[in-house]
Amino acid sequence: MAEPARPGLRDVREAERRLRERVHRTPVLTCTAMDSLARRSLRFKCELLQKTGSFKIRGALNAVRSLVEGGERPRAVVTHSSGNHGQALACAARAEGIPAYIVVPRTAPHCKQDAIRSYGATLVPCEPSDESRAETAARVVRETGGVMVHPNQEPAVIAGQGTIALEVLEQVPEVNAVVAPVGGGGMIAGIAIAIKALRPDVKVFAAEPCNADDCYQSKLRGELTPSSPHPRETIADAVRTNIGPNTWPIIRDLVDDVLTVTEEEIKRATRLVWERMKLLIEPTAGVGVAAVLSERFQAFPRDLEHVCIVLCGGNVDLSSLTWLTERPGTAE
Amino acid sequence: MAEPARPGLRDVREAERRLRERVHRTPVLTCTAMDSLARRSLRFKCELLQKTGSFKIRGALNAVRSLVEGGERPRAVVTHSSGNHGQALACAARAEGIPAYIVVPRTAPHCKQDAIRSYGATLVPCEPSDESRAETAARVVRETGGVMVHPNQEPAVIAGQGTIALEVLEQVPEVNAVVAPVGGGGMIAGIAIAIKALRPDVKVFAAEPCNADDCYQSKLRGELTPSSPHPRETIADAVRTNIGPNTWPIIRDLVDDVLTVTEEEIKRATRLVWERMKLLIEPTAGVGVAAVLSERFQAFPRDLEHVCIVLCGGNVDLSSLTWLTERPGTAE
Repeated sequence: MAEPARPGLRDVREAERRLRERVHRTPVLTCTAMDSLARRSLRFKCELLQKTGSFKIRGALNAVRSLVEGGERPRAVVTHSSGNHGQALACAARAEGIPAYIVVPRTAPHCKQDAIRSYGATLVPCEPSDESRAETAARVVRETGGVMVHPNQEPAVIAGQGTIALEVLEQVPEVNAVVAPVGGGGMIAGIAIAIKALRPDVKVFAAEPCNADDCYQSKLRGELTPSSPHPRETIADAVRTNIGPNTWPIIRDLVDDVLTVTEEEIKRATRLVWERMKLLIEPTAGVGVAAVLSERFQAFPRDLEHVCIVLCGGNVDLSSLTWLTERPGTAE
Repeated sequence: MAEPARPGLRDVREAERRLRERVHRTPVLTCTAMDSLARRSLRFKCELLQKTGSFKIRGALNAVRSLVEGGERPRAVVTHSSGNHGQALACAARAEGIPAYIVVPRTAPHCKQDAIRSYGATLVPCEPSDESRAETAARVVRETGGVMVHPNQEPAVIAGQGTIALEVLEQVPEVNAVVAPVGGGGMIAGIAIAIKALRPDVKVFAAEPCNADDCYQSKLRGELTPSSPHPRETIADAVRTNIGPNTWPIIRDLVDDVLTVTEEEIKRATRLVWERMKLLIEPTAGVGVAAVLSERFQAFPRDLEHVCIVLCGGNVDLSSLTWLTERPGTAE
């Protein structure tokens, strides 16, 4: 079967041009306490400080501006998203004066739903299943004549997320490895495209909850292996989704390894970043941190000295922090 | 009565030299959502991302290094502190290989006490009153032969905190006003010294909880006016202390105005910074934000366009966040 057209370094460079002055060049921070725990020199790429509170604005804005630049000014843009891509597409569409319709699972955190509304987009609720999301979005596309911007399989979205890697290579030239969480795989695929084209010596690691390990299973078996339709719960709500047909070949070929972490490890890492770095990451961003603190990573060779972790987002529902005060081991 | 020797711009410059490469040059961040709320262009000086989680390392390290450079290598350093200065002095002393004794009120947040211990300092508990703090510290000085480094009245501490302003003037040359919380007054005094020497056109505002408004009362009456020995409670625990004999004359002469804010305003501002900026500030840092969002500040002339708020620290006790989920108005 023919594989879909893959974005390449040129597409990531084009995205960089389109995004210039429109998104933040987010800072890279360090933390001595975290270095001690990881026994490596860590750099934290702070995409939680990005516009809309996550890296997703990069892909969404690149997709919308690609459409506008191509002369195909859409009547509307449509997507389904557990939250961050929805916010990002709403924000990108508003910047271009285009209506946005965002299909959101009823279970998505309220703060994310409120933020989508605050960008002036129309929310369309659906059930929390991949099928309901896709069906609802298809219906909205038919009804509005809008263009679907898939949160992670759209090539312009993948290329937009890759701009993170261009910045990392400039900000941390000594980097030996980049670690980022994987959900649908748009970010890790975009990063891998840019890194392996420019600095093939730099390792690219995907980090994933054990409870949503379709990317790990896919790499293990050598074929795209979605999770069961009723996967286990994870606090890392933004990476519950599966990788897909466009991100899988890139991940298969360019991502060095997939590291899985438990719910306890995610919570501990998230809390550590809050306490030690004062950065309000969402638990999904804690997945990458947990991976680097894991025993498995500690056993990696010492020449993987400079490790850059992408702190992908900070959209935390502050009214649901009960897990913070639970004692370790009592919650799952 | 003769006034104590005041630090000047030269002392702040000396502090800058002593601290170079030893503390972070913290980033200045922006946030469109906060600009909209304040209806001004805000810049946030992120001292919560400073080593030890607050600006206090600047003053503490400047004091310790001044002692060492002066040839008077102390047998120990001693202080009393509700937390952040204690952590900072412990960290500074460890960097110089000097024992530190930190007198801490029994009521100080556990996270701050733990952090002080983690820097290898000895904790000495006291009662939560100014008298008990001072008496206990004096006893420890006698017993150890150490040198007292007062958290806010020590001139080298004031000069160290002033380095924040040197960085702000470089990072935000267009600044029209700087806003910082006031407790003992070390930070606002150091900032005012540097700002008024270099850019007298830039306004300097102190921000203070209504429930601990000794600085406001002092400015109003034109004389140092401590709070009653049993002041009201404030969530901004780091600014419960009074300004003192060394910071008062500087504040009297160089600080343009003192802005007071309610507990509700502090909580709302703190939560806003968490939600919109993803920065885990402690409520004391929310005092400055609340001041700029207040009706009184909104009524200030529009030519106060570029306002820099010092986010002074991020040492939050994550196990005591119940106030976050309380409905507005139910807690005080």
